[in-house]
Amino acid sequence: MKQYIQTNNQRFLDELFSLLRIPSVSSLEKHKGDMHKCAERLVELLTEAGADHAAVYPTAGHPVVYGHKTVDPSLPTVLVYGHYDVQPVDPIELWHSDPFEPEIRDGAIYARGANDDKGQLFMHIKAFEFLVRTGTLKHNVKFILEGEEEIGSPSLAAWASANKELLKADIILVSDTTMISESVPSINCGMRGLSYVEVKVTGPNKDLHSGHYGGAVANPINVLCDMISSLIDQDGHVTVKGFYDEVVELSAEDRAKLSRAPFDIEEYKEFLDIKEVKGEKGYTTLERTGIRPCLDVNGIWGGYTGEGAKTVLPSVAHAKISMRLVPNQDSATITRLFEEHFKSIAPDYVKVEVTPHHGGDGFLIPISSPAYKAAEKAMTEVYGVEPVPSRGGGSIPILADLQRILGIDPLLMGFGLERDTIHSPNESYLLKQLYAGMEAIALFYRYY
Amino acid sequence: MKQYIQTNNQRFLDELFSLLRIPSVSSLEKHKGDMHKCAERLVELLTEAGADHAAVYPTAGHPVVYGHKTVDPSLPTVLVYGHYDVQPVDPIELWHSDPFEPEIRDGAIYARGANDDKGQLFMHIKAFEFLVRTGTLKHNVKFILEGEEEIGSPSLAAWASANKELLKADIILVSDTTMISESVPSINCGMRGLSYVEVKVTGPNKDLHSGHYGGAVANPINVLCDMISSLIDQDGHVTVKGFYDEVVELSAEDRAKLSRAPFDIEEYKEFLDIKEVKGEKGYTTLERTGIRPCLDVNGIWGGYTGEGAKTVLPSVAHAKISMRLVPNQDSATITRLFEEHFKSIAPDYVKVEVTPHHGGDGFLIPISSPAYKAAEKAMTEVYGVEPVPSRGGGSIPILADLQRILGIDPLLMGFGLERDTIHSPNESYLLKQLYAGMEAIALFYRYY
Repeated sequence: MKQYIQTNNQRFLDELFSLLRIPSVSSLEKHKGDMHKCAERLVELLTEAGADHAAVYPTAGHPVVYGHKTVDPSLPTVLVYGHYDVQPVDPIELWHSDPFEPEIRDGAIYARGANDDKGQLFMHIKAFEFLVRTGTLKHNVKFILEGEEEIGSPSLAAWASANKELLKADIILVSDTTMISESVPSINCGMRGLSYVEVKVTGPNKDLHSGHYGGAVANPINVLCDMISSLIDQDGHVTVKGFYDEVVELSAEDRAKLSRAPFDIEEYKEFLDIKEVKGEKGYTTLERTGIRPCLDVNGIWGGYTGEGAKTVLPSVAHAKISMRLVPNQDSATITRLFEEHFKSIAPDYVKVEVTPHHGGDGFLIPISSPAYKAAEKAMTEVYGVEPVPSRGGGSIPILADLQRILGIDPLLMGFGLERDTIHSPNESYLLKQLYAGMEAIALFYRYY
Repeated sequence: MKQYIQTNNQRFLDELFSLLRIPSVSSLEKHKGDMHKCAERLVELLTEAGADHAAVYPTAGHPVVYGHKTVDPSLPTVLVYGHYDVQPVDPIELWHSDPFEPEIRDGAIYARGANDDKGQLFMHIKAFEFLVRTGTLKHNVKFILEGEEEIGSPSLAAWASANKELLKADIILVSDTTMISESVPSINCGMRGLSYVEVKVTGPNKDLHSGHYGGAVANPINVLCDMISSLIDQDGHVTVKGFYDEVVELSAEDRAKLSRAPFDIEEYKEFLDIKEVKGEKGYTTLERTGIRPCLDVNGIWGGYTGEGAKTVLPSVAHAKISMRLVPNQDSATITRLFEEHFKSIAPDYVKVEVTPHHGGDGFLIPISSPAYKAAEKAMTEVYGVEPVPSRGGGSIPILADLQRILGIDPLLMGFGLERDTIHSPNESYLLKQLYAGMEAIALFYRYY
């Protein structure tokens, strides 16, 4: 594969850049046309790579791209999952180059989606192409590439339920996660789930002059701050009633195994330029993101936010709040518990609305499976180090759904790094990770 | 004056509308040209009304309009203060008509500035015109109309200091406040001061994926909410250290006098559509806005605030926070105390910046003065009820400055009503208040 990458390097970059140039932001209505354009481009790439069939399939939301190559029905089948939609780019002013005009700087591709997930799914298409063109493909391969991962995959579960036969496979192979560090490859064997809500707190029925009413009428921003502040206690516990009821505490043995992952807290703080970390009492930083649930405000707004000063006592205040969940916490239940709790703590002088956004459950996958073993061998060969089994803090809620619907375990071979700052300005992906990923994926097929 | 208003009604409206059509938003750089246009238009109106001299005077910021008519230097001089700048119009989508294209609906003019303060200062120009044209003006009159009241009058104090001789007068007459209700005229004999700051809380040095870092890294929005929440305690007291040190407690007698002002708490709650009021323990609603200081968040923003969901753990969160002050609290001192307090409560895992915006002291004026007595008589004649002396919750910080610089007391004959929703969408001004104001001002000159 190394040789093949060298020979085809420029074409690979041209093809990947053609994907990155399409602003397929799934959450914004105005990019609806771009979603279709991106899906069509993927069909072309799959077909050119050697798929027997590849097409755009409509769903209730953004379309799904499905393609396959059947070598021999009796051979094992690998279902590759990826997503071609990307996060919004704001704050756009912090980007050093156009998010939709990829640039290579210091050995990395800078663009929205460079890693998440266009860059990572592209590795699968190229590894597949290599195996087809060199006549070494010994598996049936299926691709399912969705356009709604960043908005919680509202359509894919239904589409998968309706197309169970088409998606039949032995393993779901996914590259949409990170490794522990450049020198420490890892394979994700669990992801957190997600519950995401938007809240609206209404005080008076109109914006008021803060001089005339200030001190006498509850200010919905102050009240929202009070309410948010009460959601996490002094020890970093989420106070939503029932929040921890279904959380399975890890055994001391499992916690010890996890703690073997190399982690330098000083490097971590330096990377983020923070003096102190903060989280749930009694857990390490890796445990806080790996095995413990949490609550974060992802956005807040209300009142006057323009330049200068405006003395307004606003009518409403809003926040987007998400909770990361661990296996056994049910996303729908947590969303309901949050809504009940948030309404129960609302004081008399405001009205509160809670609107659920997307959510999804977490999951765990067995380290003992043949697929995990094959991935381990492949990564060891590429990196010269045995990969560490890790627990991902992020969420790919649809994977828990696909696992349930199709009865197939996912395997997460992710090649992203912390430095890639996915979801943030200046998302990037190291070329050496792009190439290492292609190699490791090709080797996975050899050992699986 | 009644007759004069009837005869000239259409011209009056045309002239006022010509002012309201100019979007003189002082806080927004893009309206700089409009500020000049509005100042020029006022010079025209003053000149047409009968001023000997009227001109636009540059300042370090938006220009000042000054004009005068000298009848006889030995007669008393009235200095009319007003401001031609207006508040921003957002949220623009809540306006039922263009904020800068005035409309009359149900006996009220709807436009930004209809009341605050273009409508109210216009009454003074027309009362002056009436006195001039009918040969009944027995005072020297000076007009000082500024373009920076809504941003804290950063330039007028310096301009007034440099032009003390020009501004020499016996009383500062101002219409920029409200009456208690349509049927209960009142004269403001005190205003609250203001301290206004902007705060910025920085956590990690970049936006992060909330899945990868959530639970382990302090979220600046959550931290900002914690900090804001701690600024007001359970009893509604502001917790900023030293905040109440200089507040003079009113005597039981004074509180009893204030409580005589008619006030219906049920009507008040219904008007605002709130179930409960909220404020400092031990004080009534009128006291909370009249004689007690308070703290309000005027704006808050951070993270993702667009449509849909984005799982970001943001790098920064911002808020605009203002404190209304009562006489004897020094605005600069309070701003400093706030800054010290806010920094002192910042946890180790964030960085905090505090930027002061404008501020100003409160003031009190004597009810026993001849000017107050003249205003009282004038309003009694127009409304058929003796006006109530009231304490305004809002702030006109420049008046405390002018009082100090020029050594003249201000007199606040305001004709606004709560229903006018100044600073909010659909600002309006009742035509009958516009006309009653003109009459009362003309009568003030008769009795002063």
